This record gives sequence, structure tokens and C-alpha cells, in this order.
Amino acid sequence: MAQRIRLGMVGGGNDAFIGAVHRIAARLDDRYELVAGALSSTPERARASGEALGLPRVYDDFKSMAVREARLKEGIEAVAIVTPNHMHFAAAREFLKRGIHVICDKPLTSTMAEARKMAKAVEASAAKFFLTHNYTGYPMVRQAREMVAQGELGEIRVVQVEYPQDWLTRHEDFKQAEWRTDPARSGAGGSTGDIGTHAHHLACFVSGLRVESLAADLQSFVPGRALDDNAHVMLRFEGGARGMLWCSQVAPGNENALRLRIYGEAGGLEWAQEQPNHLWHKPYGAPKRLITRNGAGAGEAAARVSRVPPGHPEGYLEGFANLYTEAAEKIIAHRDGVDAAPEVTCPGIEDGLRGMEFVNACVRSSARNAAWVTLPD
Amino acid sequence: MAQRIRLGMVGGGNDAFIGAVHRIAARLDDRYELVAGALSSTPERARASGEALGLPRVYDDFKSMAVREARLKEGIEAVAIVTPNHMHFAAAREFLKRGIHVICDKPLTSTMAEARKMAKAVEASAAKFFLTHNYTGYPMVRQAREMVAQGELGEIRVVQVEYPQDWLTRHEDFKQAEWRTDPARSGAGGSTGDIGTHAHHLACFVSGLRVESLAADLQSFVPGRALDDNAHVMLRFEGGARGMLWCSQVAPGNENALRLRIYGEAGGLEWAQEQPNHLWHKPYGAPKRLITRNGAGAGEAAARVSRVPPGHPEGYLEGFANLYTEAAEKIIAHRDGVDAAPEVTCPGIEDGLRGMEFVNACVRSSARNAAWVTLPD
Amino acid sequence: MAQRIRLGMVGGGNDAFIGAVHRIAARLDDRYELVAGALSSTPERARASGEALGLPRVYDDFKSMAVREARLKEGIEAVAIVTPNHMHFAAAREFLKRGIHVICDKPLTSTMAEARKMAKAVEASAAKFFLTHNYTGYPMVRQAREMVAQGELGEIRVVQVEYPQDWLTRHEDFKQAEWRTDPARSGAGGSTGDIGTHAHHLACFVSGLRVESLAADLQSFVPGRALDDNAHVMLRFEGGARGMLWCSQVAPGNENALRLRIYGEAGGLEWAQEQPNHLWHKPYGAPKRLITRNGAGAGEAAARVSRVPPGHPEGYLEGFANLYTEAAEKIIAHRDGVDAAPEVTCPGIEDGLRGMEFVNACVRSSARNAAWVTLPD
Amino acid sequence: MAQRIRLGMVGGGNDAFIGAVHRIAARLDDRYELVAGALSSTPERARASGEALGLPRVYDDFKSMAVREARLKEGIEAVAIVTPNHMHFAAAREFLKRGIHVICDKPLTSTMAEARKMAKAVEASAAKFFLTHNYTGYPMVRQAREMVAQGELGEIRVVQVEYPQDWLTRHEDFKQAEWRTDPARSGAGGSTGDIGTHAHHLACFVSGLRVESLAADLQSFVPGRALDDNAHVMLRFEGGARGMLWCSQVAPGNENALRLRIYGEAGGLEWAQEQPNHLWHKPYGAPKRLITRNGAGAGEAAARVSRVPPGHPEGYLEGFANLYTEAAEKIIAHRDGVDAAPEVTCPGIEDGLRGMEFVNACVRSSARNAAWVTLPD
Repeated sequence: MAQRIRLGMVGGGNDAFIGAVHRIAARLDDRYELVAGALSSTPERARASGEALGLPRVYDDFKSMAVREARLKEGIEAVAIVTPNHMHFAAAREFLKRGIHVICDKPLTSTMAEARKMAKAVEASAAKFFLTHNYTGYPMVRQAREMVAQGELGEIRVVQVEYPQDWLTRHEDFKQAEWRTDPARSGAGGSTGDIGTHAHHLACFVSGLRVESLAADLQSFVPGRALDDNAHVMLRFEGGARGMLWCSQVAPGNENALRLRIYGEAGGLEWAQEQPNHLWHKPYGAPKRLITRNGAGAGEAAARVSRVPPGHPEGYLEGFANLYTEAAEKIIAHRDGVDAAPEVTCPGIEDGLRGMEFVNACVRSSARNAAWVTLPD
Repeated sequence: MAQRIRLGMVGGGNDAFIGAVHRIAARLDDRYELVAGALSSTPERARASGEALGLPRVYDDFKSMAVREARLKEGIEAVAIVTPNHMHFAAAREFLKRGIHVICDKPLTSTMAEARKMAKAVEASAAKFFLTHNYTGYPMVRQAREMVAQGELGEIRVVQVEYPQDWLTRHEDFKQAEWRTDPARSGAGGSTGDIGTHAHHLACFVSGLRVESLAADLQSFVPGRALDDNAHVMLRFEGGARGMLWCSQVAPGNENALRLRIYGEAGGLEWAQEQPNHLWHKPYGAPKRLITRNGAGAGEAAARVSRVPPGHPEGYLEGFANLYTEAAEKIIAHRDGVDAAPEVTCPGIEDGLRGMEFVNACVRSSARNAAWVTLPD
Repeated sequence: MAQRIRLGMVGGGNDAFIGAVHRIAARLDDRYELVAGALSSTPERARASGEALGLPRVYDDFKSMAVREARLKEGIEAVAIVTPNHMHFAAAREFLKRGIHVICDKPLTSTMAEARKMAKAVEASAAKFFLTHNYTGYPMVRQAREMVAQGELGEIRVVQVEYPQDWLTRHEDFKQAEWRTDPARSGAGGSTGDIGTHAHHLACFVSGLRVESLAADLQSFVPGRALDDNAHVMLRFEGGARGMLWCSQVAPGNENALRLRIYGEAGGLEWAQEQPNHLWHKPYGAPKRLITRNGAGAGEAAARVSRVPPGHPEGYLEGFANLYTEAAEKIIAHRDGVDAAPEVTCPGIEDGLRGMEFVNACVRSSARNAAWVTLPD
Repeated sequence: MAQRIRLGMVGGGNDAFIGAVHRIAARLDDRYELVAGALSSTPERARASGEALGLPRVYDDFKSMAVREARLKEGIEAVAIVTPNHMHFAAAREFLKRGIHVICDKPLTSTMAEARKMAKAVEASAAKFFLTHNYTGYPMVRQAREMVAQGELGEIRVVQVEYPQDWLTRHEDFKQAEWRTDPARSGAGGSTGDIGTHAHHLACFVSGLRVESLAADLQSFVPGRALDDNAHVMLRFEGGARGMLWCSQVAPGNENALRLRIYGEAGGLEWAQEQPNHLWHKPYGAPKRLITRNGAGAGEAAARVSRVPPGHPEGYLEGFANLYTEAAEKIIAHRDGVDAAPEVTCPGIEDGLRGMEFVNACVRSSARNAAWVTLPD
């Protein structure tokens, strides 16, 4: 077993939901050891949070962490960036330029301009860059992607993707909600940036298709909200497939209801995040088939990112951990100067750019009364 | 018990699916007696079909049926028109002008011009006109409508409606398919006319809102098909609600998957035609509630159109029969010179016009690259 | 089309749930015409109910109906008996001995002794006898039975059947509840007689196996209740299959949750009455398959008792109507002096005897502390 | 944050499914550090497996591990025993007598005699003993238990529990299967021991009731199999509740379908392991309520063992990890000489004895043709 990868973390202090998720995800398969952190932009909170976690090395800010860790003999090899969006680039840059691999939360940045700078920083760096579009870590999403790639659906015609939630139905005072509804920290997209990017990425990941143009109708239903909390988007994919994307933070009764349906001339696939161990395959003219994780009909693409037998549900944290473990495979291969196995799959900078272009296109289209806009602009 | 209503039928000969459905729907609650028919536009088939059903009076064509029945002492009081769309108006006109009530299949006509003529014919007639948007006959759809009207969802924000099927995934040679994909008989809309109108009607029926404008992206995926077989439509409702409508005849694994989801500031409702006895009510901030037909929490609006205790599923035919029974209530009231009870509900000419405007708007919008168009134009 | 069968009805007056169900079931496929009735054991109610339905011939009691109808040239050819259990035999006898076919509600009688007399009366009669174990009328139950018969499951090992309800959870004063909890009218079984017989019949109908012995633990949970309202039964089938039957009237949240699961060495089948258009087929070592009514994979046994395309749900009334229509096929064949087609299937006197033996065995076993008892005793 | 607990492991070498599960479960919340192991009863495999995991201290056998670790200053504080059943006691004894806490897989032992010895060893030890009935770690199981305890169901009447699987449908040559079907290693129960004990424990855990007597009908359907692979069990609980338990390893299409339903005079609760984030609450006379993990209506008992927001599924590993974390709470409290908080809940020796009594009673009852036997005997 290869030595565990020494990991640092930027952001993810005491109350942050997503920081704890990243830490569990990194730990689950025992491929990382968290040894350093600058867990908050407020130095006192950064220190308190780092100590509460018992981190060996605690920093006041990401810059000093990057500088010092790069000099240590046993300094971090990778860093997880789990801050609000507007800080992703500034933090990532410091690590990338010092050859430290970056595992960054999505969306890539808060602005398109920063996204482009991030792409250049990644290009200029010897280090790897990973983006945690975690839903692609679910085994049955991998299974779906494999089936599409193998032509089981024939040519794709229709892609329906949706991601409704309800947690911003009212104007409430969550910490999580606060920065996500603030354009300065979140960027131009509200629901489109926070969850629409996941939906967009999932649709492209499974279908293997890029969105060529879209028409978006964005709304802020809650009075006083600066960013969209609901978006309806019509999609046109390369090759002629059409689709729809709906994301919402104001749809009561929807918790985290990401759902993808893809239809081709030979069959359909349906997957829902809240029941992630199931994949419906509906070949045209044959009985509907329910494929379960590690069950009959599930293939190697799913099995290699699964841990327990069929019927023992794996969930959100396991899917997230799969991205960390895939990143570890790539980091270890990089450490060894070899290529990772071709099946190792983790979203990266290209996915991040596509996501930012998606948000940008939604905002531009909506500002022009849902006119069609081309991607990338 | 009032005497059964003497009913005639135009169309619905031997092989027609929908004619048999109308006959069962008329019979289920024992409010009608089918006594005459012109069941095909081909006289020999009309005769053969009428005799096969044992109809007392069989006609070669609807015109002679209208003329003669109007003169009989015990002639038909109502007629069901179940022909392809392009014949609805010509047939209905003959009966309406003779004071015979019309129960007409949807969509109203094949063209907007005929739709307007139909409206005038209805206005000029002493007889009633009913349109079989049968999905509004389901008890739990009535329940949903009642709950929205009573304000249980608060102000409506989002309406998602979809109606995917798969029966036209390939270019196959069904009789049912033949006229539905022929513009001369079906009208300008393919999937939009055949099933989009149902979805549009259901969304408006339950929400109590009209669509003010829409942007539609229509496709004919099957090579050589003249009419749309898939449609993505963004909707803007009066009062500010937004929505999406998707209908498709090429989505493998979807049989008749009409589904409505409505979200307001206080809660959501979700209903699916293939599980019609269930209605999900999701009040914001409270556990999700499953209301079952005639079960706890279901109200009078549902109970009055239901026949059996909870847990005994009622289906498509019962929902269809409810429209016939509601029409019977109105016909009997008309016979007696009184008003039907206010809760009696059956779609009519206005609903038909709205549906034709919807199809028309979809086609116009799509021709202009999914530009927004206003309803009515 | 053959002339409609002239039908009479005993029981089923104004408030009776099951009488109305039988009338709709008889009417749905237009094979019967209800022309006479003795709808209550109270003459005034019998008359009032008959008039309310507009019956041509209304009788004060079943005896006078049997006598007179047998003498009429156009008298009834069949009678539906929908009284409480204790009156089934007395009524059926009068019609059977006059050559009038009997369609009788289940369970067969209220006592084993009467059940045997009924069998003799049927044997002595030229008329047919049908028992409305209506759940066998569902198309997907027919599909399941066909698949078992064709060996798709291999040798059957386990049969799990359950029928929980909740309507008798408390001591409430329903009319329906009243006679069903009265031993004098219902017989020795409470839940076992009313719903356990359905579950037992369904298990045997689909598996093609008879119960050889059982061990039953019966309870009356509601204080003061004379009959069982909950039963746990272990089953041993001919050929070595084992199973369990649970029926309950005191399981809150269960409306009419009849459910059957059968497992053999090669696969399993699962069906639930509240979602009757679905049948799960789970071949060992292959993906789970969902077969839908009239959808891909459904065969002729289901199709011949189905009316509408896949995705258009058929329910309880349609399943019930199938028994009436199957009975009609047999009656017409009898009228014509021929045999009905071999696929025509309707439970009869043998099924009724098996059901009574089941109830009897449950009661005897439970009285002996759930000792095994053999069927028939 | 308290220092991580130093953990050893007995069993769980290379190919063992459950060893990997325990390691992830221990790691998930970062409360343990695995530092030593005797991972196989074959010394070479023990060494190879330990090295593959990069364990600091690898032993050839559990005895030498217990002896040496007890003497180390920084030796293990707790040991996970994940061997086949027949080795649980011999291994646990060595650690218990040296004051090392034991986390033991279920069932407790392979024989009743050993179970009693284990109880004595626990009593004699200063160390804690935990038994991984992991399904009690699911948040919604905790929620259910809390609701029953708070009287939401009223007095319990009926408990239905089942645990069907299909992996032993045929005589196949799994490593997992091998010892589980061998009486010498597994004990007297096959399906009853491996999964029946889980079902029995879950029913008692949630209902708060003990089984007073049972009648069991055990089968070995696969020819040549020495232990039961299917069991039907009727249950009588203290206080008068009745129930049924079905467990099976030969029910095709069932992966790990543990399911519990509890009904009282005021309502019902239903939970299924394969959809563990959902709990149905069905109050009598009110709409069915779906309570989701961390969603509205879920209480503190669930929230304290949950990590992510509603709609982000947690699964099998998280539930298992909850037991490890609860054990950690008790171990830390013990280390600190205080009591753990009262809500900390982890099955222990009593649960293990109850489980062994259950298996024993099933086997005895079945040998006497499913006669009732009392627990404990």
C-alpha cells in the first residue's frame, strides 16, 4: 500500500458543512492524511478550528501555509480548497505555483475572468488540479456513463436533468445560505452556480456530449434576493440532442433531488441522487430493468468505485470519497512518474471551465429574455 | 334515478382505441345509453362497427345521423365525437345546431381557424359542449386543485409538468400513429397536440393560472416525421409563476408518464398519472404527506368523484368516466332547466380554445427559434 | 355480439359497498343487464333500493325472486349474491336448483357445513357457480400465474403473502364493520374470513399449489371483538414449498395492501394490489425486470383481460369486471351448449371450499396454540 | 478533540468483506487508529494482510497480539473481532482479561455454551464489550425507536420483520458462503444466525420489547446444505404483541432487504434497510408521513448520528460507523472515568445473549415441528 498522501485544507472551519464532508471523503479509503490547515479567513477561527481537529500544522492564512508547506521536507502534497467561490482562485494559485496538487470545490471560481486565470495557472503548474463534482463519483453514474459510451441507448435524443432543493424557500439566516446568495462571494449565479453546475456537469458527464447553446429563464422568487433561486434552461447539445435543465432552491419538499434522464433511439436511463444505488435501464421494446450497485447487470465501471455488496446502500459520502480516491490514484501515479490507469476518472480544470461557461451563459441568456446563447461565448 | 341519457357516437369504429374508452366511460356510472352511431368515415366500416356493438340505430355518416336523430322523438340527447382532430368541427357543428349536446375528444380541432368557428357554434347553440381532458377527472387531481385554491401552497412560483411516452420512438406502422403524425388530420402539433395539450390543461386546471407566454423548442427526431415528437417549453404564468413543460413520444421506457409538480411559497404538490391514487403534499418545514384517494386528508372534491374505499385503486377509465358523469349532471340539469351544482366540473369550449392557442403558440415560437410568444396571440 | 345476460342481484342495497362494486363490474364490459333485485333482507329497504336503481323488477326477498324469475320467459339467467356470508347458501340454493347461474361473493359461506351443502347444490345443478375472488382478475396476477406455470421460477420454494388493512384499528361503528365482526353473520373467521381467504386464494392461484398444512396464531386486538382481527399463519404447500400469510385489520397506514411474493430456485415474482399494473420479475443472476400491464414482456394471459394501453392504469373495478366477463364467457358458452375457451378463468365452488377449509384450519390451529393442522381436515 | 483510540483487529484479512467494513467504519469519524492486527488464522496470510494494510504491528495470531499489546505502553485500547463465529469467544477472552475493550461482530458466538462463557468473561473484565448489530446505527432506526418510546404508536400490537437475501440461492463457492454454511464455524443457525439475529435484534431494539416465545419452521432448500437457508418464525412479545420474522438466503431478487414494520393502536412505522434515510410514520386516521433523515419531523436521536443534510443519502457504512463512534464515546468516557452521555447507544453482551437465545430457540422449535418454545429456555 502506497504511503498516504499528505493533505492540507483551506476553508472548512468549524461550522462549514462542506469542509467536514471533504475530510470524511479524504479519510474514507485511507489514502490521505490531513496534516495542515488554514481553515478560515479569520485567523482566530482558523486556529481554533485547526486545533479542534488536532491538525499537526495550523496556519492563519492560505498564503503562509503554501509558502511554508512547500519548503517542508514532509510538507503537504495536495490541498483541498473548500472556501466560498470567490476565494478559490487566489488560494489555488499559491499552491499550484509551488507544485502542490489542488482539490477544489465547485464551481471553479466566482467569475469567468478568474476561471480563465485558473486555467492558465493549472497549465503552468506541474501539479494536478481536481474539481469535486462529486455526483460523478456515484457508482451508478459511472455505470450510466459506461452504458451510453457503449452505445446501449443508440444516438442520444433527449437529456432531462433537474436539481430542485427547498432550503432557500424563505429568507432565512443560515450561514450556508449567506454567502451563497451574495454575488460578491458566490458569483453571478445563485442556484445556477451552486447546483445548476452540478446538473450541467452530470448531464455532460453521462451523455458524453457538450452543450452548444442554451436559453435560460432565471428567477429570484424570494424578495430581496440578489441571485437566481430558480432556473429553467433549454439545452441544445452537440450532435442534435435536446434537453432541459431545471434547478431550484425554492421547491418545497425537494431536499437534494438531482435527477438525470437520458433517452436515445434504443433506450433510456434514469438515475436519482436520493436513491443512488439504483439505475433504471429502459431498452425500447423490452421490460424495464433495474440495475443495482454491484448487482446483476452492473459492470466494472461501477464495481471499481464500490465497497460493499449489493443491497448495502452507499451514499453521498462514498461518492464523494470516490473522487478523492481517484485523485489519489492520479497523484500517486504522478509521484511515481507514470500515468494513472485509463479508467481513473476525476473532473478537472476543463470541467470547471465548462461549468463557469454554463453559469455565464445562463445569466447572459436570462438578461436577454432567454435568448439562445452559444457556449463558449 | 334520472333516466339514462341517450347517446350517439361519431367515430370510434372497430380498431379505434379511444372509441372503446369513451363507451366504457359512458357506461361505468350507468348514466348513458348508447343508441346510435356513425362509427367510421367509411360507410361499410361504420355499419359493420355499429352492428358489432349491437347499436339500435346505425348510420353511414354523422350528417345523416344528426338530421335523423334530431327528428326522432326519442333521438339522442348527446353525441360523443371521437374522430381524428380534423373532423371534430364538421361533426360537432351538425349536432350543436340541432341542440344535441356534444362530448368531444381533445384537442378541440386541427386548426385555430376551426377552433374559433367551434367556439361560435357553441355560443350559438342551446346545447352544451364538453371536452374530454380526461386527466382532470382523476380524484387526486381534483384534490390538488382544491388545495391550491384553498391557498395551501401560498402563492405559486413554479409549475413543472411533463408528459413523456415512447410509442413513437421508431417509425412504426400503428393505426393510432398514422393519423397522429399526419398534419392534415392532426393539425400543426404532433406531440404538442396529442399530449402537450393534456399537460398544459392539467397545469392550468390545478394551478388555476393561465399561461401568458411561452418559448418552445420542438423537434421531430424520427426521420421523415412531419410533426413534432418532442417538445421543450418554458412557461410564464399570470401572476409571475414560471414553469416548464416537456412532452415526448420518443422517450423509451415512458408509457404514459404525465406528471405534475407545483410549488408555492408554502409547499408543494406532486402527482403522477401512473400512480393516480396518490398525491404528495409537501408543506415547507413539515414532513412530506402522502394523501391517498379516499384516505385520511383527502377532501370532498376528490371523494365526490370516487367510487371505492382507499387502497382499491381507481384508474384511467374511472377518471374518464368522471368526465362523462359530470357532463351527465350538467345535461340532466339542463334537461330540468336548472343549474348543475357548482362543484360539477367538466372542461368545455374555453379549455379547448386555450389548448389550441397553446399548440399554435408552440409551433409559432419554435419556428422563430423558441422566441417568446404571447397567449392568445 | 351476444345478447347481454339478464342479471339479478340479492343484497347490495343502498349503503352496501360491495353491491355497487358488483353492479359496476357487471356493466363495465357490457355483457350483463341488471333487471331484477332483492337488494336487502328488509323488504322496505329492498324495494327502496331497487327503485332507486331503476330496476325493472324489484322483489321483497330472494325466494320470491327465484321463483318468479325462473318462470318468466325473459327471466334472469344469472344472479349475483352479495349478502353477508351467512345468507350465501340459502340464497344460492334457490337459484341453483332452478338452473339460474350464481355469482357469489366470498367467502363461500359462514360455516363449513354450509360450504359442503353449497358444493352439493352446485353439483346437482345444471347452472354454473362463480366465486368473486376478484384479485385473480388483475391482468398482472394472470401474468404471474402464467410465468409460474411456464416454469420461469423453477421449483417454488417460498410463498409470502400478506393482506394488511387498518379500518378496524379501533372499535368503530361502520355498517361494513358491523356484520364482519359478528360470528353469526361472518362465520368463525374475522380477518381470516374477510381478507385471509383472498390472500390464501391468491397464493394458491398464482403458485398453482395447495396448502397441505398450516399453523395459525390468531388475535383479536380490539377489546370486545369476537373474531380475529389479525392472523399470522405458517404455510406448508404440496411439493415442499413453505410460506407465511399475514392478514390484519389493525395495521395503521395499510389500506388494502394485499401483496404476494413467490420465490423459486430460478427467480422471484412480486406483486402488490395497490400498484396492480406492475409485476416484478427477478430472475436469479440477472437485473430485476419490471413488467407493466400491456407493456413489453407481458403476455397473452394478461393482455386478454386488459382494456387500455400500458401506462393507463387499470384498477380494482377493472379486475373485478374481468371476473364478471369471464363468467359471461362461460355462461354464453353454456347457453350455446359449447365449452368456453380454455383460457377463460373464474374461481368457482372448489375455490370456495378451499377458502372455507383455510378459515376453518386457522381457527382450529389457533385454538390449539398454533399447532399444525392438515387441509382438508 | 480526544486522542484517537488505538485499535487492533482479529480476522478481516485480504478477502474478507466484513473486515474492510469494520476498518472503514472505525475510520469514518476519525475516532480510531488501526495500529495492530492478527488478520487471519493462517500466519502467512495474517502477515501478508497486515503488511498490505501498512499496519504498524502485525501478529501471527490473536493470542500473541493480546499478550504483547497489553504490555506496550502505547498498546491497543480496543480490538475488533471479525472472525467467523466459532472464534469470537476464544479471541475476545484474551483481550477482555487484559482490559482491552472488545468490538465483536455478530452473532456473539457459535454456541450457546460459549455465549454464556462470553457473558462471564465480560462481567469479569474491566473492559467494555460491544456487538456490531450495525443496523441499529442507522439514524432512522434511532428515530423509530425514539418514536415508539415516546408512545407515538400507542401500545404495540404487531411487529413484522423480514430479512430476505438471495446470495445462497444456489450451491455456489463463495468464500463468504463457505463458513456461513458450515455448522462447525457458524453454529447451529444458518440464515437464522447470520441475518435472523439482525432482524430479531432490530425488532426488539425499535419496539423496546423482548420475544417471550416463538415457533419456527426452518428449511434448507439447497440440497446438501447443512444449515437453514430460510426461516419462518412466529413471535410472541412481552405485553401481548405478536409478530412474524422471515429470513431467507434463497429469495431471488432480494439483496439485503431487511425491513421492519411496527403497528400499535395509534399508528405504524415502516423502515427498509435498502432505503435507510426514509421512515414512514402512519398515524391512524391521518395522512401517511414520510420522515427523512435530518428532514422536518426527524428528531435529535437521529440527528446526533447523522453527518450530512437531508437528501444527501447516508448508507450502510455510515450506520456501521455510528456504532464505532458510539463505542468510542463509551471508551473515552471509560478512559476518563466518567459515564458516557445517556443517549450513547451501542449493543453489547446482553444483546448478544438475546441473539444466541433466538437462534437456539429457532433450532429447537423447528426440531419439534415448530412447537412454541420460551426464551430464554
